Amino acid sequence: MEAAKNDSDLAKRFRAGDIRALARAISLVERRDPSVRALEEAPSGKVVAAPVIGFTGAPGTGKSTLVDALVALLRRQGKSVAVIATDPNSPFTGGAILGDRIRMQRHALDPKVFIRSMGARGHLGGLSLACREAIRLLVAFGFDQVILETVGVGQSELEVAAVADTTVVVMTPNLGDGVQMIKAGILEIADIFVVNKADLDGHQRVVMELRGMLSLNAPRAHGAGVPKAWKPPIIPTVAARQEGIEELWAAIEAHRMHLESSGRARELAEKRLRDETAEVVAELAREQALLALGEDAGLTETLLKDGTPYRAAEEILRGIGSATRKRRPEAAMKPTSEPG
Amino acid sequence: MEAAKNDSDLAKRFRAGDIRALARAISLVERRDPSVRALEEAPSGKVVAAPVIGFTGAPGTGKSTLVDALVALLRRQGKSVAVIATDPNSPFTGGAILGDRIRMQRHALDPKVFIRSMGARGHLGGLSLACREAIRLLVAFGFDQVILETVGVGQSELEVAAVADTTVVVMTPNLGDGVQMIKAGILEIADIFVVNKADLDGHQRVVMELRGMLSLNAPRAHGAGVPKAWKPPIIPTVAARQEGIEELWAAIEAHRMHLESSGRARELAEKRLRDETAEVVAELAREQALLALGEDAGLTETLLKDGTPYRAAEEILRGIGSATRKRRPEAAMKPTSEPG
Repeated sequence: MEAAKNDSDLAKRFRAGDIRALARAISLVERRDPSVRALEEAPSGKVVAAPVIGFTGAPGTGKSTLVDALVALLRRQGKSVAVIATDPNSPFTGGAILGDRIRMQRHALDPKVFIRSMGARGHLGGLSLACREAIRLLVAFGFDQVILETVGVGQSELEVAAVADTTVVVMTPNLGDGVQMIKAGILEIADIFVVNKADLDGHQRVVMELRGMLSLNAPRAHGAGVPKAWKPPIIPTVAARQEGIEELWAAIEAHRMHLESSGRARELAEKRLRDETAEVVAELAREQALLALGEDAGLTETLLKDGTPYRAAEEILRGIGSATRKRRPEAAMKPTSEPG
Repeated sequence: MEAAKNDSDLAKRFRAGDIRALARAISLVERRDPSVRALEEAPSGKVVAAPVIGFTGAPGTGKSTLVDALVALLRRQGKSVAVIATDPNSPFTGGAILGDRIRMQRHALDPKVFIRSMGARGHLGGLSLACREAIRLLVAFGFDQVILETVGVGQSELEVAAVADTTVVVMTPNLGDGVQMIKAGILEIADIFVVNKADLDGHQRVVMELRGMLSLNAPRAHGAGVPKAWKPPIIPTVAARQEGIEELWAAIEAHRMHLESSGRARELAEKRLRDETAEVVAELAREQALLALGEDAGLTETLLKDGTPYRAAEEILRGIGSATRKRRPEAAMKPTSEPG
């Protein structure tokens, strides 16, 4: 089989820096195929605080233009950049793909820029897992910088913050939803605010509103020796004219230094690995449950008798450990994935 | 403790038909508290094909007005109705709550109408589980009809279809997104199409476009004895003037009869219970994983050494069955929930 043949030397091609092998590995990860997980381990064997910058904000705030401008800046510095555009809310990737194409035109001939959109296939929570796997692949592949951009709204903002080291929240003067977003708990997830389209009327008002909100939420005084908490800066930009992008990059670097000097970087990396482990456990347990429900007619009987899932769920859970122990670990990791 | 005291006779009050006990039980379910699960069992002990109608569609199509008109119709027939307005995409329930208030004014004095909005607290997938639990509570409480209305867009459409017996997709002539939505796979989930605001120009065009799409997707001919597949009807309505609501209700009833006569109702009920069981297993496994990660320092060491979650996840999964077996089943069902 051609596909199997290709996959057998996927690891070799990936390690040799073949960008098509990277793209293929991400496709496998999206399908929740565990076969490329060995590639995710960083070559050093140490936890890499993957330098992930997350961009979020309402549609129409110019996130893509901003990311594009930042990519151009990083390229001038000689850095390689991978961008993942994700819409966790939508099973349809049309918008993201369109965005890719437009940006691909600009960076099409640059092998040091990788742009990929990821839809929300499969289970809820699946994207978040696929996204984290893809990020590990990108870091292991050797990209200097990974940028995660959300296309969706709502829940996706929180998703980005859960994955990114530095979360940039993008606002504009003309959407009028500034205050609403602030009320909605965006303050807690934003490490940096960008007021894009700062050439429009009203941008000063948005900056002032934000400043007011931030001062109300000001961190309390710390004792001696305790690192000061981060105060999110507010950066005005005009992404379409590349204005403010260097200031934005300086803020991102300052935040990264803050994370490292305060010990927060390591804390975050640990917390993320723990959360992700729980999600992987949930995913594997879900797969084993579906398997058990398909094989054991008694479980369906229990379900229909009860009219609720709880007793059957308990029964399955009690069996999961022994099923996992019986199989080889690698076999147990295999989800019931559809073919290539 | 007042709260504990109240909860101890919650079951009694729920069974006596106290609507505040129902509201409290749904709050507990939203918090993933398993203490009210016994209440979800239907009094008969048999699987109830909960008569759930799901409404979905883009914002601005008039879903709430349509649901409101349908509630009024059902009340004239003497039926009791529960409405759950859900926004799985948003952690913010502001919009839904506003909608509730407006509708509450109309139905505030009617004890046979229950309206409740549910946000997306907690884990992804959590809403869907909470939603199903809430529906079971509403059915067990004795409501004749449950209506599920989504506020969000995207993924939520698929969520509604996974929970509802009859999925109504609402469109309008003036949004111009008709064709896009159809392309996006809405055909597969719609049991009934409503073209609302049918007094606006262009509604005939939308109806014709839909008809064309549906005929392309026409089910193939069946042999003798095989029940004919359902062909989604297209119902024009002007919800704000109560026009077309009786036709909509007739279509919903026809669909329900189709489900029952074809045996599909029972199939769907079984499939839903199975899917939900797998989700409950995943939820419980996630909770046990977080517990294990908090207690076992060796797991964190493994995580940091690997830089990936997979080996630790396998280890946890192997332990889950025995941990579940050791505890009493009820204790194992308890999530690590915050206090009320």
